[in-house]
Amino acid sequence: MSLPQSMRASVLTGPGRLLVEERPVPVPGPGEVLVRILAVGVCGSDTHYYEHGRIGDFVVEEPLVLGHEPSGQVVAVGPGVDPARVGERVSLEPGIPEPFSAETLAGRYNLDPAVRFFATPPVDGVFSEYAVHPAAFCHTVPDSVSDEAAALLEPLSVGIAAVQAGHVRLGSRVLVAGAGPIGLLVAQCAALAGATDVVVTDVRAERLEVARGYGATDVFTTQDAPEQGAPFPGSGYDVFVDATGVQPAVLSGLHRLAPAGRAVLVGMGMDTLALPVPLVQNRELVITGTFRYANTWPTAVRLAASGEVDLDGLVTSRHGLDDVAGALTAGRGAGALKAVVRP
Amino acid sequence: MSLPQSMRASVLTGPGRLLVEERPVPVPGPGEVLVRILAVGVCGSDTHYYEHGRIGDFVVEEPLVLGHEPSGQVVAVGPGVDPARVGERVSLEPGIPEPFSAETLAGRYNLDPAVRFFATPPVDGVFSEYAVHPAAFCHTVPDSVSDEAAALLEPLSVGIAAVQAGHVRLGSRVLVAGAGPIGLLVAQCAALAGATDVVVTDVRAERLEVARGYGATDVFTTQDAPEQGAPFPGSGYDVFVDATGVQPAVLSGLHRLAPAGRAVLVGMGMDTLALPVPLVQNRELVITGTFRYANTWPTAVRLAASGEVDLDGLVTSRHGLDDVAGALTAGRGAGALKAVVRP
Amino acid sequence: MSLPQSMRASVLTGPGRLLVEERPVPVPGPGEVLVRILAVGVCGSDTHYYEHGRIGDFVVEEPLVLGHEPSGQVVAVGPGVDPARVGERVSLEPGIPEPFSAETLAGRYNLDPAVRFFATPPVDGVFSEYAVHPAAFCHTVPDSVSDEAAALLEPLSVGIAAVQAGHVRLGSRVLVAGAGPIGLLVAQCAALAGATDVVVTDVRAERLEVARGYGATDVFTTQDAPEQGAPFPGSGYDVFVDATGVQPAVLSGLHRLAPAGRAVLVGMGMDTLALPVPLVQNRELVITGTFRYANTWPTAVRLAASGEVDLDGLVTSRHGLDDVAGALTAGRGAGALKAVVRP
Amino acid sequence: MSLPQSMRASVLTGPGRLLVEERPVPVPGPGEVLVRILAVGVCGSDTHYYEHGRIGDFVVEEPLVLGHEPSGQVVAVGPGVDPARVGERVSLEPGIPEPFSAETLAGRYNLDPAVRFFATPPVDGVFSEYAVHPAAFCHTVPDSVSDEAAALLEPLSVGIAAVQAGHVRLGSRVLVAGAGPIGLLVAQCAALAGATDVVVTDVRAERLEVARGYGATDVFTTQDAPEQGAPFPGSGYDVFVDATGVQPAVLSGLHRLAPAGRAVLVGMGMDTLALPVPLVQNRELVITGTFRYANTWPTAVRLAASGEVDLDGLVTSRHGLDDVAGALTAGRGAGALKAVVRP
Repeated sequence: MSLPQSMRASVLTGPGRLLVEERPVPVPGPGEVLVRILAVGVCGSDTHYYEHGRIGDFVVEEPLVLGHEPSGQVVAVGPGVDPARVGERVSLEPGIPEPFSAETLAGRYNLDPAVRFFATPPVDGVFSEYAVHPAAFCHTVPDSVSDEAAALLEPLSVGIAAVQAGHVRLGSRVLVAGAGPIGLLVAQCAALAGATDVVVTDVRAERLEVARGYGATDVFTTQDAPEQGAPFPGSGYDVFVDATGVQPAVLSGLHRLAPAGRAVLVGMGMDTLALPVPLVQNRELVITGTFRYANTWPTAVRLAASGEVDLDGLVTSRHGLDDVAGALTAGRGAGALKAVVRP
Repeated sequence: MSLPQSMRASVLTGPGRLLVEERPVPVPGPGEVLVRILAVGVCGSDTHYYEHGRIGDFVVEEPLVLGHEPSGQVVAVGPGVDPARVGERVSLEPGIPEPFSAETLAGRYNLDPAVRFFATPPVDGVFSEYAVHPAAFCHTVPDSVSDEAAALLEPLSVGIAAVQAGHVRLGSRVLVAGAGPIGLLVAQCAALAGATDVVVTDVRAERLEVARGYGATDVFTTQDAPEQGAPFPGSGYDVFVDATGVQPAVLSGLHRLAPAGRAVLVGMGMDTLALPVPLVQNRELVITGTFRYANTWPTAVRLAASGEVDLDGLVTSRHGLDDVAGALTAGRGAGALKAVVRP
Repeated sequence: MSLPQSMRASVLTGPGRLLVEERPVPVPGPGEVLVRILAVGVCGSDTHYYEHGRIGDFVVEEPLVLGHEPSGQVVAVGPGVDPARVGERVSLEPGIPEPFSAETLAGRYNLDPAVRFFATPPVDGVFSEYAVHPAAFCHTVPDSVSDEAAALLEPLSVGIAAVQAGHVRLGSRVLVAGAGPIGLLVAQCAALAGATDVVVTDVRAERLEVARGYGATDVFTTQDAPEQGAPFPGSGYDVFVDATGVQPAVLSGLHRLAPAGRAVLVGMGMDTLALPVPLVQNRELVITGTFRYANTWPTAVRLAASGEVDLDGLVTSRHGLDDVAGALTAGRGAGALKAVVRP
Repeated sequence: MSLPQSMRASVLTGPGRLLVEERPVPVPGPGEVLVRILAVGVCGSDTHYYEHGRIGDFVVEEPLVLGHEPSGQVVAVGPGVDPARVGERVSLEPGIPEPFSAETLAGRYNLDPAVRFFATPPVDGVFSEYAVHPAAFCHTVPDSVSDEAAALLEPLSVGIAAVQAGHVRLGSRVLVAGAGPIGLLVAQCAALAGATDVVVTDVRAERLEVARGYGATDVFTTQDAPEQGAPFPGSGYDVFVDATGVQPAVLSGLHRLAPAGRAVLVGMGMDTLALPVPLVQNRELVITGTFRYANTWPTAVRLAASGEVDLDGLVTSRHGLDDVAGALTAGRGAGALKAVVRP
């Protein structure tokens, strides 16, 4: 197969401004492969960059390609990579750590301060026709995993990481706040990890119906200040995962934890949480947060391949490179879960 | 409900000798309940005591009631126990530790040297119409759990303990040797705990077909010395659980473990294992064994109640108190999995 | 030895009101021993009850004996206790859990909701001449441990529990905020647990000098809002233990944690902490708190016996039963660390 | 500083045959540094290669430079390395894993099958004047660490890894079999990691005296079959580390472990161990082995710098490049602990 010289890429040039540009097709270096992008999931962080031009300290100062949940097909290999990989369908793990940094060698490569991550300034993402990436971070998927599901191994990895951070195990009783794509995948992973109770809460009743298909054993609609009343029954959860980023949801969850319970803060958006210290002490609760994921892809591939996780069912809209703006704003629609860009 | 003064019990008076005796119905002491026994699973250790009169250092020197996997109904309570428990259907956890021993306070009450366990000399078991037991070790089961399933929470607990000792978690690749009742329940627990691969091996092909209904994702028939050849494919397992107690099976499993893999020795019968030390060192394998279980019943109840484990499907014969001998030898039959005594 | 019929006890009858009463010497029940109290450490919670009549939800509604850090000598045993224990010098672990509760059986007996704890309403403490206590919670100490050191195994246990909750291990870099008795013992335990760096901070320079004798490898005086400036150098700690209960100290410590660092909140006094959620997430920090301790006494006895912890050096004043008020307010004095009541 | 064109290296050309050769000074590649070797500890594996030409499957087929415990000084840097590192004194961690292999990314880079390790065929070691090595595996040491101590951070790392694998923590009771250099450093690390009891056994009484300076709280001379008698008192150890590689010592240690105790097999030489399976099961013992170490150097540097480990005291002979044979056979002498080659 002869490769083209140039490709199209969707470039963010300022808040709310996207351009489709022609760019040279990149050349894979040592240990890298060139991937033709097949599908890219849209994440809330992409939308946030699009709308605000920044996320916290990360500011878009130069034109930036968004998109960090890609699948694709290997079309060329760089030096040192087995040429037999050409033709493989792959899911791209988006963060590349420094190989021999302290965090990488400790098995926490996601926490390496020098990690380079798709669509995090100044590193370009993958709303484009091609991308180069280290071969080791391009995970082969079997035929039973669709292109779109292969892209969504990224949010699935967020769910896997949450469940690991929560120490969910056989018999755990788990509470998940938030039934967006991440909350749904956390619930699904918790159920697969052996949780006998997976209770999902959300303010939107329609999302809760979807949750029943993603491992929830019970669902409840929450109100504004659930920690003060009792809008849903239950207490004594071993694990609470927040996928809302909203303080009342977190406080409600913390109060419902059993002694030695674990809370995992996955949802973003809170600057500070008014942590009830006596509660944490008296029950010896453990609070932690997750930053992306590490070593999750092999598990994610197997879960998707087995059919136990319905990733395709999360996709509620599809968009070409010319309609990245539509993809980035699709989440506003009723019933929308996950938009996918098909370059 | 008025209670009878006496009850019938099946008593082992010597190897191969069982008598049905009339005995006084016991009276529950402080913190105890009186349970009418509804079903009792038969375990290989019961059969071993019946046939040999001993298991290792445990020797039957006085007449002994066998049976340690009981379910029943609470019919009376002792001082300090809520009378509302009368009428509850319960699964009896058979081992009672010393309350404030070092091991009990450390959360390992199964390892308390002073533990009193049904049907372990000189403690009587439950092939009888009634038994007293601490209320805390009589675990209430919901209606969705049958009497026989409630009895089989005991072997299910062995499976849960094995999976916990193996650190099976979401994405684990697990190899289980042996497809008897324990192997089947280990496989089922491994699958429920998130294992994406659950490979079960046995020398009996017919048992392997059953394994597919208990979580196995693949099954293989093994030969006498599997460690020398390659009677089944695969390596790189994260966890290996032996439920055979046979050295070739264990060695085969150890060689198939991935670096940092864990092996759990559940099957009994080996005095010594010729452990390949360089293999253990070079891959930093972890070898451990389980002794019964601790803190598993709450999980077992929930798993059975959810229908995710088919305990009723394990029962292949039922026997009255007059036919305990038949129950103890039922395992010899082709296709036999689990005999149950219904007093 | 013939025992007296009555004994003296110091009773709190209202905020700031203490009376010495004659009370009958209690009789040990099954599994219990009678202990002649030799020394009782004074804790901030005793002082808080004395001054305010309550701590949070725990309100002194009936006359209450304070004091929960006792040592003593066994003078009689109840049924079921080895009479050979009479004469033993013991350190009393003050909390008695329900034997077969879920938390006790899980190895977390300190979290059992039904735990009975000295000097926590309505349970009397040990500012008295005698007390009964379960034999299993009266830990024998060797001659090399003084009566006062035996009493101070209680705060030492707080330090051990903090170090365990922080996962301090060989090579850890540990930051401890607060150089009161608890902070000092946390620092000492961290050093003994293998920490190569033990940095202690406090607003009181004189306490920091003491810290150098309790394992601190470096000390720093902090200001009011250390998290905003940099009043002491250093970052990249693996473990942070707060023994101040003051928000700026906690925030300063959290910001100085390395990726995957652990924070243990031991100090009491904060209702809420303004937890910086993005920091917790981006570094995957783990925040927890400790509630007393479990299974620490055997270690505490051995540490004190080895001479590696200088508990006697913490005692800065001694008081009789007639001067419990003096003991409870001794902490206000400059240089005061630990007051001890000698009944 | 101008560098020479050639250097001297001691080359093993066959069992018992060493030659000093002139070789070109190697040139550091990207991410690498050139180190002038200052001291190299001699390990039993070096001696084994020298005497037998092989260790298990690793066979010396081409001339090989031995030596894998080096310290040195950085004299040049390759592309991408900070030139300021020139002049630093460093301890070289001898194994280089594949950067993005599964084991490396999981934090177990020592278990990466593709690891390249000094003096393991076909990779040359460091009995030479210069060597190149990745900058990340050249760990800077402060002035307080001597050249020889910097070399011996390698065996110290073995001790750290053993203590980590054994989960030694504050209050652990530890039994160490073998008082050679590794056993001594294991004992020292166990004591530093908080063990309150560190009992060391050996068949050679003179080594046991040395052990008292390396953390041992008690020492015992063992006989041939200690598991059958009771040549030293004590049981109930939480951790057992074998540094002998001899079956009777291992069996003796296993029988002395407390419930849930951990055994770490560090000593090499056993092909198989007759593991007592009922003991492992009844006490739920955990058996594991260590393969070198991972992520230990930062801790090793700090321990050596603090003076808490006396590495210099282990050196019992020093040899030039012309006397590598003498270094390799020095261990046969009475009182010999560690030989060092000074190129």
